[in-house]
Amino acid sequence: MSDNKIPYKIYLEENEMPKAWYNMRSDMKNKPAPLLNPGTGKPLTAEELSPIFCEELVKQELDETTPFIEIPEEIRNFYKMYRPSPLVRAYCLEEKLKTPAKIYYKFEGNNTSGSHKLNSAIAQAYYAKKQGLKGVTTETGAGQWGTALSMACSYFDLDCKVYMVKVSYEQKPFRREVMRTYGATVTPSPSMLTNVGRKINEQFPGTDGSLGCAISEAVEAATTQEGYRYVLGSVLNQVLLHQSVIGLETKAALDKVGVKADMIIGCAGGGSNLGGLISPFVGEMLRGENQYEIIAVEPASCPSFTRGSFVYDFCDTGRVCPLAKMYTLGSNFMPAPNHAGGLRYHGMSTILSQLYDDGYLKATSVKQTDVFAAAEQFARVEGILPAPESSHAIKVAIDEALKCKETGEAKNIVFGLTGTGYFDLVAYQKYNDGVMDDYIPTDDDIAKSLAKCPKI
Amino acid sequence: MSDNKIPYKIYLEENEMPKAWYNMRSDMKNKPAPLLNPGTGKPLTAEELSPIFCEELVKQELDETTPFIEIPEEIRNFYKMYRPSPLVRAYCLEEKLKTPAKIYYKFEGNNTSGSHKLNSAIAQAYYAKKQGLKGVTTETGAGQWGTALSMACSYFDLDCKVYMVKVSYEQKPFRREVMRTYGATVTPSPSMLTNVGRKINEQFPGTDGSLGCAISEAVEAATTQEGYRYVLGSVLNQVLLHQSVIGLETKAALDKVGVKADMIIGCAGGGSNLGGLISPFVGEMLRGENQYEIIAVEPASCPSFTRGSFVYDFCDTGRVCPLAKMYTLGSNFMPAPNHAGGLRYHGMSTILSQLYDDGYLKATSVKQTDVFAAAEQFARVEGILPAPESSHAIKVAIDEALKCKETGEAKNIVFGLTGTGYFDLVAYQKYNDGVMDDYIPTDDDIAKSLAKCPKI
Repeated sequence: MSDNKIPYKIYLEENEMPKAWYNMRSDMKNKPAPLLNPGTGKPLTAEELSPIFCEELVKQELDETTPFIEIPEEIRNFYKMYRPSPLVRAYCLEEKLKTPAKIYYKFEGNNTSGSHKLNSAIAQAYYAKKQGLKGVTTETGAGQWGTALSMACSYFDLDCKVYMVKVSYEQKPFRREVMRTYGATVTPSPSMLTNVGRKINEQFPGTDGSLGCAISEAVEAATTQEGYRYVLGSVLNQVLLHQSVIGLETKAALDKVGVKADMIIGCAGGGSNLGGLISPFVGEMLRGENQYEIIAVEPASCPSFTRGSFVYDFCDTGRVCPLAKMYTLGSNFMPAPNHAGGLRYHGMSTILSQLYDDGYLKATSVKQTDVFAAAEQFARVEGILPAPESSHAIKVAIDEALKCKETGEAKNIVFGLTGTGYFDLVAYQKYNDGVMDDYIPTDDDIAKSLAKCPKI
Repeated sequence: MSDNKIPYKIYLEENEMPKAWYNMRSDMKNKPAPLLNPGTGKPLTAEELSPIFCEELVKQELDETTPFIEIPEEIRNFYKMYRPSPLVRAYCLEEKLKTPAKIYYKFEGNNTSGSHKLNSAIAQAYYAKKQGLKGVTTETGAGQWGTALSMACSYFDLDCKVYMVKVSYEQKPFRREVMRTYGATVTPSPSMLTNVGRKINEQFPGTDGSLGCAISEAVEAATTQEGYRYVLGSVLNQVLLHQSVIGLETKAALDKVGVKADMIIGCAGGGSNLGGLISPFVGEMLRGENQYEIIAVEPASCPSFTRGSFVYDFCDTGRVCPLAKMYTLGSNFMPAPNHAGGLRYHGMSTILSQLYDDGYLKATSVKQTDVFAAAEQFARVEGILPAPESSHAIKVAIDEALKCKETGEAKNIVFGLTGTGYFDLVAYQKYNDGVMDDYIPTDDDIAKSLAKCPKI
């Protein structure tokens, strides 16, 4: 089955691992628009960001010019525990599809947190420790980010306070237990520990909570306690910077076996994985060195690229966070409750938004039942049980490989397999039982939500 | 932290993977005692075994002389999807313990089934397919084996019928869903699909089921349907043969970096992982080429090596299976319901039993609260959330590394990390909540159970 040239899993040696993160912004002619202070409408300064984020991370957030930022040795040592992650040649999937395409996937689920989120969590925890902080706070919905952060904090002996949306806290007890095993304090949100939490509990007794509320609580907890800062797992420039390790490894591994990618496919929620995966490839495009076809895949139920607007909007539903210019469905937009496939964020990384607007990437949206069908097909031949998020990329990779079958093209298709689905089995069960359905917002739903964006 | 000589993860290249399994029995002077027909008391013949097991597997079960048995190419191709598994140098754990010992672990949890069980599942599925069978049947308790088998059957388009102990079926719905995602039929046992199931349901209405009953149902289902055979995930000689891939890779990786193991530690339930891990090392001991200290670790609640007797006993609680001469606590023995740490089998592989009796390995037992404490300590520094089973080996590896700290010895300690704990979070939660307790059977408990062994 193998062509005996390219192994099933292309591993880099430890000394071939990236020693610096790549900052896409340095090569962008049209820089992403700055974050704005919602009070003044002016670009946020380092001084304004420092009470919320660690100093070094503020620098990274605002740095538009440095192409490469060294990965500190402590972080590189942690990376060595689960990186380099394998770039897998999907021989079994190719054979099943009978496609001439060559399919590769970068598998980021081979660590206990089960996703790529750990790449940025360890960096953020490191800078917090270096600054002499006691701990960090964050919010988590489904729990991938909270799990990754709790692992990272445990490694650096840093206190970790996670505000977990109450409905997830109750319905995903296993995610919660992993975080507790790593020593994190997990509080169902809204809680009685913060002013905003108490206020919401008073206004809406018995509420299930929301990500917007959990963010507000986490930010309040960070800014009102000595020695704490707030950290976030996606959307931000610093997160895309850290996640560039995915793309750098992918590029190095492909180079090692002499393969040039034709097409790169990634799922897109807030953009952390997609931005990381495509960064060195986009860098080559920005510098005019090479061409790639890049496809962002989003859920049809939360289609920020494909049906959103490129405007300034709040980063959070609670409207306490900065304004970002991004493709957005409006900060009030919520995918329907039957949406089980992750990627629920209403907006998108400002970097990716600018690149999309400038034509460097395409976007497409897929229905969740199709996503789970692709997930199951993939699991059965490639062995890995994929996360629903990752399965958006699988779905489009399979579609593209089938197009190659029609045209006879032997394209090199690379996609990001961001994580595993061990904690998503309630969704798999729905799919297996045939009771999963699809939801596509109407134009009216989106227009109503977009109408509430600030007029800037 | 690293000494820059040995990487964190020692990977073999694909062409360095084993091409044959190693059969320890070929080098044993004292061969393991044969399985006996419980009806006649005579050694089971190939003819008697063939209605239950696939032909090729019957051969492997009875083969005491062939040292190496070639791994068919189809199986090697499947292995390439998740093997070679990493041999990890536990630099972070060493630093945490401040021990001069060098700790290595062979990590078998990097596949979707989450454990080493897949190594034998794919082999057994392959031989079933090659024989032209329609499918296989098996039982599963916690679900590791059932998951592995469902993955293997899905790869070879083979029907897979899993009888899952009813209480696990209800309490571990996620394991069940993974199996269904891989296309297996999962039936809670006792069911109404078999004679034995109907009988038990009639006698004990509302029963939760037991592994013994599930085995009986799976065997009945295999032997009464055209084109089916029964498969088993541990204890058998064929399973240890397939699992030798773990030890062969471990030995090859250590050789590659010029390290000689001083001590090899593995958890022991039925013996599949331990037997596989130690096989090439024991081979060298049997041939007088080398010496190793080998330690089997079992739960204090189910201590077959350390407190059982070396006698003929039934392989199953239901007493329908053959008799095996093994270290056993009696086929009626059941660990207390508060036992959460896996490794519940009353007996032990006949090969390992003979080796233990001949002094090639030592055994020790550990309490489950100590096991979970070690698991948590390991998870926090090495990143991986270990299965409770695997954590028995972690506990003893840590203890031995701490002894080295006292003596100043820089021993090379190798242990088997058989799997991940994603589906064991109910047990972790008990531990995190401080409500896990220990159970140690009394001498009287064990004597009573052993008294029911057949007198042979």
